[in-house]
Amino acid sequence: MFKFQILYQSRKNQARIGAIITHRGVIETPVFMPVGTQGTIKTMPPEIVSSLGYNIILSNTYHLYLRPGPDIIQELGGIHKFMNWKKLILTDSGGFQVYSLSQFRKITEEGILFKSHINGTEHFFSPIMVLEIQKKLGSDILMVLDTCIPYPLSYEETKNLTELTHKWAVESFEYWQRHKNEKQAVFGIIQGGMYEDLRRYSAKFITSLEFDGYAIGGLSVGEPLETRNQMIETSLEYMPYHKPRYVMGIGTPLDIIDAVIRGIDMFDCVLPTRNARRGTVFTSKGFLSIKNASFKSDSLPLDPECECYTCRNFSRGYLRHLFHAKELLVYFLLTLHNLFYYAKLMKHIKNAIKTETLENLREEVAQYYLKNFNDSK
Amino acid sequence: MFKFQILYQSRKNQARIGAIITHRGVIETPVFMPVGTQGTIKTMPPEIVSSLGYNIILSNTYHLYLRPGPDIIQELGGIHKFMNWKKLILTDSGGFQVYSLSQFRKITEEGILFKSHINGTEHFFSPIMVLEIQKKLGSDILMVLDTCIPYPLSYEETKNLTELTHKWAVESFEYWQRHKNEKQAVFGIIQGGMYEDLRRYSAKFITSLEFDGYAIGGLSVGEPLETRNQMIETSLEYMPYHKPRYVMGIGTPLDIIDAVIRGIDMFDCVLPTRNARRGTVFTSKGFLSIKNASFKSDSLPLDPECECYTCRNFSRGYLRHLFHAKELLVYFLLTLHNLFYYAKLMKHIKNAIKTETLENLREEVAQYYLKNFNDSK
Repeated sequence: MFKFQILYQSRKNQARIGAIITHRGVIETPVFMPVGTQGTIKTMPPEIVSSLGYNIILSNTYHLYLRPGPDIIQELGGIHKFMNWKKLILTDSGGFQVYSLSQFRKITEEGILFKSHINGTEHFFSPIMVLEIQKKLGSDILMVLDTCIPYPLSYEETKNLTELTHKWAVESFEYWQRHKNEKQAVFGIIQGGMYEDLRRYSAKFITSLEFDGYAIGGLSVGEPLETRNQMIETSLEYMPYHKPRYVMGIGTPLDIIDAVIRGIDMFDCVLPTRNARRGTVFTSKGFLSIKNASFKSDSLPLDPECECYTCRNFSRGYLRHLFHAKELLVYFLLTLHNLFYYAKLMKHIKNAIKTETLENLREEVAQYYLKNFNDSK
Repeated sequence: MFKFQILYQSRKNQARIGAIITHRGVIETPVFMPVGTQGTIKTMPPEIVSSLGYNIILSNTYHLYLRPGPDIIQELGGIHKFMNWKKLILTDSGGFQVYSLSQFRKITEEGILFKSHINGTEHFFSPIMVLEIQKKLGSDILMVLDTCIPYPLSYEETKNLTELTHKWAVESFEYWQRHKNEKQAVFGIIQGGMYEDLRRYSAKFITSLEFDGYAIGGLSVGEPLETRNQMIETSLEYMPYHKPRYVMGIGTPLDIIDAVIRGIDMFDCVLPTRNARRGTVFTSKGFLSIKNASFKSDSLPLDPECECYTCRNFSRGYLRHLFHAKELLVYFLLTLHNLFYYAKLMKHIKNAIKTETLENLREEVAQYYLKNFNDSK
């Protein structure tokens, strides 16, 4: 059981409010999925993530496959019970992590040979294997194996990797036809690098296979914001209206609004959690680095307009002290704040869709978040 | 306003139930104070520490003096507001940390010259200065500066350091007579090393000064359990019945029961929090190291008899995974469990005093915790 319903379609742009209906409950879109790489949203007890309003999180197949391994998670009752998260979980296919974390990898027609970033042991991922791993994990939404395409890359090489992604998508689809179950949905992934015609080609091809939803992959790999938006637009032209549309690994508040306006429903990104651990928080006035000496005896909260637990209870001066003293509590407090910010952003976005004021919200956010994430580091 | 009342005196031993009454509220003794070295109980949001039943914590003058500094804490409204802890705070004098953390120190008649363990800068602590720092911090119970006496140490050297502690106690006492305030109480510290007659000498001397309470210092520095208990007994002979008695830096569950039986009211120790971060937890059946391979796919909680948040929600298999993956959440979950264990232990102790069954509780705990802490590492 996996359904997607569109509850409201903006009259001014492509943005829409939707509902993903599963046996585990209903989630409203546009939705942001915090990243729980190793079976935990870093520093956060799951109840708190849930209390912030999150109904779906992402976890990484690559990491969980290597440690503790899918068999152990299966023995312990599946990923939900394992990490005590009662709502939805989407797992990626590992394609991106093999690309970004493994010291060594070799792509063949059959799959990807790679070495563990933990202990150097050799492993192989085929399209069917990554679905089997995700079946064992027991996630609610599974992603098919794709090839991650670096940026920049030649047209020829991009085309080859895109076609390999298509071949694997077909293998994944056929496998799933034979082995599907009622509780898990599978999404296809569009590649095509930063070439418009390859994106178009890939979007057409992938959406010709009847997956439960479709993702745009291979973005946020260093390309300019305009290119990113162009690739999203091109892919979207061919993505079916009545299925969930997910853009992977994105993004900043502005990235998210830009994609929602173009018709995207689902997002995941490490930004709120990773930034927090590096001392950078999202505020209603843009990024703030808690490390700054100017906050030494500042009694204000991170964001005077924020009502999160951290802002209601702790001063910048205290948080700066904790950060410099490397006190573990600070990573929790800043992560909580950033996840609260993203949850609120998604609420504002949904509200703005309904009231047809998304362009205004974009302007408001662009004032403070026009810069690329890289500028904030 | 600082009062101590004895609510119940055991008929079978020296244990007693008491109440420390301050402007910030009442705390019942025997009491265990979790250690919040740098203005935070490591990993723990203060509300959770409070919800576990703790009404008083300890923080370290040495650390807060070096970072962020007493002036900043004062500017930010004092230590309670700084760390958002609304209940009692006891601060030590820094004497022990100067001894254990500073790469360099020189003890003179006037105080201790030392180098910061953070950046090597030189600092000086005099008895009056450490009281002034603690005044700025705004803690509820202040400790006087003492000399930490290593174990083993010759009689002659122990005697000299003990006498210097006495000289500083007099200076502290006289300073406090002139500068005391209604909101802060000051405790004296008995030294004397591991020599019974020096302990007696120190206990007599320190308790001749009218402090609000008295502590036994210089224990848990490597001495055998029997020596420790002997030093506590000897010191206690001279400690006034109607004032709180605090044994510093102790201890294991068994240490605490042994000291309570002899008439001690207050405890602090890093064991529950530090052990947690190292993967060792306290259970009703003794220590458990979550690192063990045998827990790989163990679906039981840390302690099946425990009702803490961690034990109600997470398996050993999951916690082991988090620990090996160095996921920050695990330090929180294990710390919470250990603090829950200590809170419950203190409840059991109070109950056992009232029902005159403390010796039975001791036997029960000794079954599993007879070993020294060092064996558990």
